[in-house]
Amino acid sequence: MSKVRVAAFSVSLDGFGAGPRQDLENPLGVRGPEMFQWAFETDVFKKMHGLGDDGAKGVDNDMAFRSFENVGAFILGRNMFGPVRGPWKDDSWKGWWGDNPSYHTPVFVLTHHARSPLVMEGGTTFYFVTDGPESALKQAKEAAKGKDVRVGGGVSTIRQYLTLGAIDEMHLALSPVLMGEGEHLFSGLNLHELGYKPIKTVPGENATHVLIERLV
Amino acid sequence: MSKVRVAAFSVSLDGFGAGPRQDLENPLGVRGPEMFQWAFETDVFKKMHGLGDDGAKGVDNDMAFRSFENVGAFILGRNMFGPVRGPWKDDSWKGWWGDNPSYHTPVFVLTHHARSPLVMEGGTTFYFVTDGPESALKQAKEAAKGKDVRVGGGVSTIRQYLTLGAIDEMHLALSPVLMGEGEHLFSGLNLHELGYKPIKTVPGENATHVLIERLV
Repeated sequence: MSKVRVAAFSVSLDGFGAGPRQDLENPLGVRGPEMFQWAFETDVFKKMHGLGDDGAKGVDNDMAFRSFENVGAFILGRNMFGPVRGPWKDDSWKGWWGDNPSYHTPVFVLTHHARSPLVMEGGTTFYFVTDGPESALKQAKEAAKGKDVRVGGGVSTIRQYLTLGAIDEMHLALSPVLMGEGEHLFSGLNLHELGYKPIKTVPGENATHVLIERLV
Repeated sequence: MSKVRVAAFSVSLDGFGAGPRQDLENPLGVRGPEMFQWAFETDVFKKMHGLGDDGAKGVDNDMAFRSFENVGAFILGRNMFGPVRGPWKDDSWKGWWGDNPSYHTPVFVLTHHARSPLVMEGGTTFYFVTDGPESALKQAKEAAKGKDVRVGGGVSTIRQYLTLGAIDEMHLALSPVLMGEGEHLFSGLNLHELGYKPIKTVPGENATHVLIERLV
């Protein structure tokens, strides 16, 4: 069955999913990359970004691999798409990921400001959705054609879908990092009350993978 | 060297160290025991509480065992000592743990209300400290005679000592539980700025053990 998933989403020990003060130099926020160290070292990540074929092939890599399996569409928040705020001045910003982003599917970007779809190389097209997360989910499900919809992030976007009870499965990668500040994934959300339950813990080489499902 | 330690302190995936609404029936707060399931199943815990000798003897048990090694004194918050609030009406409340508590050392209880020391069986004496956490720490260090001081909890007490930068080492047991509400260990504390750093992750059978040190 088609699922709505969060996958391989890095979280610090103190619950942050991104560092503070995101800008062009800090796409993941200040110190954000420390939380993603486990991913950067994997074979999946290195091959995906043309960084060689000497990446780690253990548990962390398996979990990174699975995060892309059977994904038919992505949903991203606007800040995950880029550092631009307010109305789009022009079409110059095309994401952080170069001409051939690693999505290779339709990607629905939540924004308050309309913009024409942006066709990239390798099968990725960014669609800009201005009528809210439920509409984006509906469009993503249609576009996924029976495959899963992956809510890629960032924190605010994932929180919106968790609150809607729309996430079926969430794989968090708990990183051995204390951020101290940034965007908090859990703060003020009662995931227990929303029906979410941890079902499995998988120890990786550089992160602890936790699988959470919504039991309804 | 003598250390000030937090050890085997259970934390939920969403960062809570106790459930909400502690009372006589819920010493750990509502749903609190779910976070301690890993400990309840260990040989150390079962023997300590006379619950048989069929407890688990793996990694979780080793970590539970270590939490009591070389401890010369404990510090507890008043709510960890009991559900009584305000001035002590009489001496009837002697802790949650029966006549022979598992501390077997001097135990310094932070409170705003004076009370005479309470001598229990098995080497545990509760001392009630009314002049603040720094005084309690000084007294505990003296009483520990070169051994470690273990800050037992609860959440508010640990947060006070973390904020003072007084904790040298903290072993958290991350439990696969989403509490949703309760007492949050990290909220509003910037442990990174306070000098704390995760140094090791040890996967246990029913919890993930994280060792954090203060690097100064």
